[in-house]
Amino acid sequence: MAEVKQTVVEGVDALTLNGKSDADTVETATDAQAQETAGDEATTNADDVVDPWNVASSNDAGVDYDKLIKRFGSSKIDDELIARFEKITGKPAHHFLRRGLFFSHRDLHTILTLREQGKPFYLYTGRGPSSGSLHIGHLVPFIMTKWLQETFDVPLIIQLTDDEKTLWKDLKIEEAIKLARENAKDIVAMGFDVNKTFIFNNLEFMGKCPAMYQNIIRIQKCVTFNQVKGIFGFGDSDIIGKIGFPAAQAAPALSSTFPFIFGNKKVHCLIPCAIDQDPYFRMTRDVAPRLGFPKCALLHSSFFPALQGAKTKMSASEQNSAVFLTDTPKQVKNKINKYAFSGGRVTVEEHRKLGGIPDIDVAYQLLKFFLEDDAKLEEVRVAYSKGEMLTGEIKKLAIETVTPIVEQHQAARKLITDEVLDKYFELRPLKYGS
Amino acid sequence: MAEVKQTVVEGVDALTLNGKSDADTVETATDAQAQETAGDEATTNADDVVDPWNVASSNDAGVDYDKLIKRFGSSKIDDELIARFEKITGKPAHHFLRRGLFFSHRDLHTILTLREQGKPFYLYTGRGPSSGSLHIGHLVPFIMTKWLQETFDVPLIIQLTDDEKTLWKDLKIEEAIKLARENAKDIVAMGFDVNKTFIFNNLEFMGKCPAMYQNIIRIQKCVTFNQVKGIFGFGDSDIIGKIGFPAAQAAPALSSTFPFIFGNKKVHCLIPCAIDQDPYFRMTRDVAPRLGFPKCALLHSSFFPALQGAKTKMSASEQNSAVFLTDTPKQVKNKINKYAFSGGRVTVEEHRKLGGIPDIDVAYQLLKFFLEDDAKLEEVRVAYSKGEMLTGEIKKLAIETVTPIVEQHQAARKLITDEVLDKYFELRPLKYGS
Repeated sequence: MAEVKQTVVEGVDALTLNGKSDADTVETATDAQAQETAGDEATTNADDVVDPWNVASSNDAGVDYDKLIKRFGSSKIDDELIARFEKITGKPAHHFLRRGLFFSHRDLHTILTLREQGKPFYLYTGRGPSSGSLHIGHLVPFIMTKWLQETFDVPLIIQLTDDEKTLWKDLKIEEAIKLARENAKDIVAMGFDVNKTFIFNNLEFMGKCPAMYQNIIRIQKCVTFNQVKGIFGFGDSDIIGKIGFPAAQAAPALSSTFPFIFGNKKVHCLIPCAIDQDPYFRMTRDVAPRLGFPKCALLHSSFFPALQGAKTKMSASEQNSAVFLTDTPKQVKNKINKYAFSGGRVTVEEHRKLGGIPDIDVAYQLLKFFLEDDAKLEEVRVAYSKGEMLTGEIKKLAIETVTPIVEQHQAARKLITDEVLDKYFELRPLKYGS
Repeated sequence: MAEVKQTVVEGVDALTLNGKSDADTVETATDAQAQETAGDEATTNADDVVDPWNVASSNDAGVDYDKLIKRFGSSKIDDELIARFEKITGKPAHHFLRRGLFFSHRDLHTILTLREQGKPFYLYTGRGPSSGSLHIGHLVPFIMTKWLQETFDVPLIIQLTDDEKTLWKDLKIEEAIKLARENAKDIVAMGFDVNKTFIFNNLEFMGKCPAMYQNIIRIQKCVTFNQVKGIFGFGDSDIIGKIGFPAAQAAPALSSTFPFIFGNKKVHCLIPCAIDQDPYFRMTRDVAPRLGFPKCALLHSSFFPALQGAKTKMSASEQNSAVFLTDTPKQVKNKINKYAFSGGRVTVEEHRKLGGIPDIDVAYQLLKFFLEDDAKLEEVRVAYSKGEMLTGEIKKLAIETVTPIVEQHQAARKLITDEVLDKYFELRPLKYGS
């Protein structure tokens, strides 16, 4: 839609024309230039809406990620990068990387170089707690993050933006804090090492650590309304809380926000997140060098499709679009059987003759995310494409793959008491590296 | 200037037309209506610029306060109110009130009624720490506040907006915090009772008390960019920190910002301040009822004139416009003699014949603020008006009045160690009432 293109192009204008960018942000010019070039391209092609609050595509296969990379001015994760990644870490890349589910990045080479040189960096990711229970798609950035933390042995910061959800949704402060804690239990249940992981929610952390507010003020001093208007599409009738909020999501990308972990060291930061969060970090990357900090690096995931198909992403606010981590095996089975958009043909005869279309088949997409065995996945793809495998069969396999993940999660989450959770929220130094 | 009128009228539009005002803010409509009516009047008359960052008049006697009352929609402090004040407190009103130096209010009658009924309220005032040393004009709101605290025996909250000064001035976070502490020493030196007084600076308090940020978010959720544009004149090229800041000045007017003092009680609040701060509290009064809080009451002072005359207010950033609390007796003498704008005539002969004009004479204004003896002041006014008293003589009296105030302040300030200061900043319950 033209609207998206315009938003992005205005973002570029705001960042480059308002006179705030200067010599020490040369890289920004590059980012911006890429965006600008892409802006023209988008004029003819862009059908996808992608911003922190909306993801929609008119295409059954979902968002065109190659176009998105051009439009956002990020870089594709290519074979060469994956090879370098594997060489430096000495282990195979996660299947999310190998299968292009994390498909885009900014400055990942810088992070790999830091590792080669034995220099530190940390991971930062987050979640906006808008619902009490998470769906399986919410696991994706955290699975990637956990794997990265284990691979690199680095500290991890997880931000819960309960302030954001209070501002955007019909949600009271107290409710948002409650949801943040509930969501944190799900995150902790994934097995993050408490010695290396700090979790916080803005509405409480802000009142415990003066450095957080001080960095927010530093960031808010560098960003104009014109800029957030361009980047996020804010308008004059938006509440001032929304206008100021991007600084709260940017602040954890500055290591000095956590003096109890990093002292006053200026440590590099890598952010694994879904690509719809990129606007926040484009802004952050513009500001950081002006405050004497390195630009955050990014690792972007594609969207986890709604059961109804990849035109939209799975959403916790639409019950039937998602497999929840609280669903029973029966619910999982029924939802996938009933709602998972099929790439199969109308009749069995036709399917046997023409074959299914994995790219638009949600059951296949579920397997792509959660079936770790590459050989098995390829076998399924071929059989389904040839019409040897039927829709009912691929759905059955998806159910068999997803159900144990949900069951294991529920078992793990039962063990997360308030006491266990509080340890992750405690302001303290982290133990990492060797 | 037309600009001022427009700002005010837009403020009204924003507050009344954006659909946020509803039945429970009937009083706002009254406020706003008064402003709107005044808007028309201002078209022909308003020459004065009055907002939180600018005060200027083309008139030698300074801002026309009667017009300002109409334009802002506040109420005049009249003889009847002063009589009620004296009846309820059982003591003569402070000379700042009697002489009209505090000339305007909002809901002061409500506060007096609360006192009659034995119900609680608290005082809230503040300062933006933009310079290390205060000038004598800065004492005025604090003298009034101290007198009110002693008269009513109520808790007092003093906010130092070091975040505001970081955002508006070329001032680093660390410098602003330093200035806040320096200014706090001057305030404490005025003799506030530590048992009844809590002082804080935003850049540090925000990180100590989650209720502060939570109330800021609540407020920021109620106010749109359109509104702050109308009220404060912000524009698209303003930094987002400025746009969000008004909520930080509004939050202390909600008692729940200080759970360690008020628990979760919703206590009324009276704010003594210079009238240029009124826009913040018009916004606060619009928001408070929507959050279930009473509207703050206000007591507005006129501006303390620059030595160069009442067209502008005394400013700490212009050395020669102000008598500083750090000035030596010699500096005080020289500054008043050299710079204090005179309402006297060009020659002694002319002065003897026509008399001086006290209303535009800065030495006389200094006496009006600081010479407590009413009879003596009246004597001076008459003698000066008749030409019996010369400019040199009235300046001499002003010097004799101001110098001991400055000297006493310096002596008191020497006793304010960091340890003494820290007690005021400590989050703790206050002891008040009986």
